Amino acid sequence: MPSPRLERQLRFILEIDRLKGVLRRTVLTDRSRRENSAEHSWHVALMAVLLAEHAAEAVDVGRVVRMLLVHDLVEIDAGDTFAYAVVAAGEKEARERAAAQRLFGLLPADQQQELLALWEEFEGRSTPESRFANALDRLQPLLHNLHTEGHSWVEHGVRKRQVVERTRVIGDGLPELWEYARRLLDDAVVRGWLEE
Amino acid sequence: MPSPRLERQLRFILEIDRLKGVLRRTVLTDRSRRENSAEHSWHVALMAVLLAEHAAEAVDVGRVVRMLLVHDLVEIDAGDTFAYAVVAAGEKEARERAAAQRLFGLLPADQQQELLALWEEFEGRSTPESRFANALDRLQPLLHNLHTEGHSWVEHGVRKRQVVERTRVIGDGLPELWEYARRLLDDAVVRGWLEE
Repeated sequence: MPSPRLERQLRFILEIDRLKGVLRRTVLTDRSRRENSAEHSWHVALMAVLLAEHAAEAVDVGRVVRMLLVHDLVEIDAGDTFAYAVVAAGEKEARERAAAQRLFGLLPADQQQELLALWEEFEGRSTPESRFANALDRLQPLLHNLHTEGHSWVEHGVRKRQVVERTRVIGDGLPELWEYARRLLDDAVVRGWLEE
Repeated sequence: MPSPRLERQLRFILEIDRLKGVLRRTVLTDRSRRENSAEHSWHVALMAVLLAEHAAEAVDVGRVVRMLLVHDLVEIDAGDTFAYAVVAAGEKEARERAAAQRLFGLLPADQQQELLALWEEFEGRSTPESRFANALDRLQPLLHNLHTEGHSWVEHGVRKRQVVERTRVIGDGLPELWEYARRLLDDAVVRGWLEE
């Protein structure tokens, strides 16, 4: 038999497989289907490795990667909230906090604390690492939308003002990318992918 | 316009989205569908963070995680080779090497070298980090199969000898897990999930 500690770790590892079933609004670049939160997490973690040199401040890339690997786990219980959905912020936060308690609570206490701290840091956006991680988390669906002629924007009648509001945090973590993205958003309006 | 360097990085980031379309033989723990290589990469990267204390030798977890984030990228061109398929090893290797040249070649030269080195280290299994990474890569589908009553073993008539041959490298990176897995494999034969 494995030790109780290893048993808890394996139980958690099997439980988080469910993140692969949480669907986002973004579609894959070939538009074949909606993206799930596990593969999104892989994508942004690798983006962190590749784009670290563009971060606004010096960052510990290893911590950014760990943060991005766990940042969406709460969606296993709480679901993915569409970026432009009108949901009371307090309600979403309460749901996600309960999810974090249950999920991370499957782990041994030290690892529960470690993952909870990473998730809270990501949500708090008050460290260089979390600002960079949040910028990547918003940049990736933006790139997908721009690459698919605004697929999910058109589908949901999203306005440019809403996208700018949602993605402006890119500027806090990746200022050069944000300058570039703003010009692409202007262009997306001209092309009819995004409402003015 | 972004710098030529950033442009190459963004081109690569969009290209690797295709890993989400590469299907493996393993099914998700809820058996709803086959797993893809992007979400598998996320899963094993997070397992590296959680199981590092069980590694056979001291490892740089950050490098293990980066290795696991990139280890399957060559499948975008070369496809996933079923663990029990009879394929000439040299043919598979040539296909994957060509894929690595094309894909990593999209990146600026320094990052091309960095990712190529990580992929080669993973394939070589001659460092503590790569032995641990390979152990995780074999452990994850084993856990899925054990959790789904041997779903892909039954589907493909796989024999215990083949599984042991394939997963024996778990012992090099995660000896405690390998001891445990061997007992579970004996049990899988008794339950009829795996042929003797």
